[in-house]
Amino acid sequence: MNELWMEYPEIGNMLEEVNALILRSTNDADEFITEAVSSAVVSSGKMLRPAFVVLSAKFGDYDKESLLRLAAVTEMLHIATLVHDDIIDEAKLRRGIESVQSRYGKDSAVFIGDYLFAKCFTLLSEKQHNKSMEKLANAILKICRGELKQYRLRYMYDVNIMNYLKIITGKTAALFSMSFHIGAAEGNLSDRQIKTLSRIGYYCGMAFQIIDDCLDYSDKKTIKKSTMNDLKQGYLTLPVIYALGKDKDNKLKHLLETTDFNKTDMETIHDLIMSYDGLTQARQLAKKYTAKAFKLIETLPASDNRNTLEDIVKKMLHRKY
Amino acid sequence: MNELWMEYPEIGNMLEEVNALILRSTNDADEFITEAVSSAVVSSGKMLRPAFVVLSAKFGDYDKESLLRLAAVTEMLHIATLVHDDIIDEAKLRRGIESVQSRYGKDSAVFIGDYLFAKCFTLLSEKQHNKSMEKLANAILKICRGELKQYRLRYMYDVNIMNYLKIITGKTAALFSMSFHIGAAEGNLSDRQIKTLSRIGYYCGMAFQIIDDCLDYSDKKTIKKSTMNDLKQGYLTLPVIYALGKDKDNKLKHLLETTDFNKTDMETIHDLIMSYDGLTQARQLAKKYTAKAFKLIETLPASDNRNTLEDIVKKMLHRKY
Repeated sequence: MNELWMEYPEIGNMLEEVNALILRSTNDADEFITEAVSSAVVSSGKMLRPAFVVLSAKFGDYDKESLLRLAAVTEMLHIATLVHDDIIDEAKLRRGIESVQSRYGKDSAVFIGDYLFAKCFTLLSEKQHNKSMEKLANAILKICRGELKQYRLRYMYDVNIMNYLKIITGKTAALFSMSFHIGAAEGNLSDRQIKTLSRIGYYCGMAFQIIDDCLDYSDKKTIKKSTMNDLKQGYLTLPVIYALGKDKDNKLKHLLETTDFNKTDMETIHDLIMSYDGLTQARQLAKKYTAKAFKLIETLPASDNRNTLEDIVKKMLHRKY
Repeated sequence: MNELWMEYPEIGNMLEEVNALILRSTNDADEFITEAVSSAVVSSGKMLRPAFVVLSAKFGDYDKESLLRLAAVTEMLHIATLVHDDIIDEAKLRRGIESVQSRYGKDSAVFIGDYLFAKCFTLLSEKQHNKSMEKLANAILKICRGELKQYRLRYMYDVNIMNYLKIITGKTAALFSMSFHIGAAEGNLSDRQIKTLSRIGYYCGMAFQIIDDCLDYSDKKTIKKSTMNDLKQGYLTLPVIYALGKDKDNKLKHLLETTDFNKTDMETIHDLIMSYDGLTQARQLAKKYTAKAFKLIETLPASDNRNTLEDIVKKMLHRKY
């Protein structure tokens, strides 16, 4: 069990059941898939998305078996997107262990991801989860649209904030929001409550991703190679985009446009982002989304479950940034 | 309209409507996707799979709008699998025009395929096609299992026929069978008739793929570079597998194992396949599947529609092989 859930054993235990269900559901396949899924499950992180499904349902009444299935599908969808992401990033590692694409090759990774997508839908269709299925498919559409937009906007140094927000909506907020939504629907909550929880998921997702993007620039000394590579490949995140907005003499823009900058250049880039307040502004926007999430959480009926949700979101969003 | 359908304008017109629906359904997305789908639609081949959906439904009563949607989904699923296939094969062309992966890059191709998969499910969930959705998801599972099995069995020169048959079930027969099945179900046919049509699809698919694999070896002089590359990458098809079964002195096996054979070696490989009757045996198996398909078609109620189905299957399977 991930340490995040030690304090909340009820949720932690359900997440262990979710993992067991994922393993059971995927053991009908080629050993490739079974192995790949097992290693993903073993190295599973905080399992935030299935936890959101569970926490949302617990505001109402739910059927446990059905809920576990929805939570498992949410995590499987997340794993599938990671498997496909790693193909593109050529990532060697995922959560500290060798990535599927590195271990089994890109060819297999394409179909392992596809298999997991399809498996999500079979699990839902067996139980007539028609509405959840629509939500799931819509989340995948948003994820793909976001990824494609991100790819298309590479090297566009006059990218506007709106495009960045659309990209991270797909990248993170769509799946967060879906997790809250299908959990709330399974808990038989009112349409209004479902909408509220879904918004909480959206705001959490936006804040989470912006914080993630800020962490890349939090310290000049520990700047990661992957951050530099992303920049070289023309992928811009919020601190950079804000900084470019103040880059009247195109100093930062020209540096980025060389795309073969070295470590010293990267330090100059970092300094420019700082002097243009790129990081500060990005952090401010993250805070706005965080505040919106908490404000909505407060409107939910007071309960132990609400306290748990609040705690988890706090821990998730109050990372060092 | 593809020339195959000129003689059957009713089906041909419905297929044109299917294409229009695919274009309408995918114009909500990034221009990447819209363009990629348009070019796939423009270069669409015979559209056998959506035609099977339509032909099967016409044995009963159907709702036209609903049927067109199912047919469109079937073709979109097919396009999605082609887009992902081309990533792996690094194919430059697809149906004579530049492939999605070549034109937009592998990165985009992964997400364009995912987008199309997801779109299939949203189109079905809007109309509560729950059963069709299950069939669709199951077909994707079979396709992925087949592809992964094929990949895992590369370079295994003692591959048995059963594994080859499982691979082509996923590669071709699963989607053929699904097309017949969901069309028949939409036509409100009896369970027995649905099963019969589904079997026809399966047999057609098996025959179709074996014939395709035979065509690669039909003439020594016109042997394609892609056939040689497949062999070098350890992908074995039925004529080769049958030949290996008679390769007592491992002559063929050793040649294949070198994996860097030149054009002259390839001619020797071809001669060995011929002398071991690999092609003849493969053709015989294709004939068996073809006969099974026609036998079942004859059990369907006599009608113009049955005649059309019979004609189409004949044209499809009586290719030069």
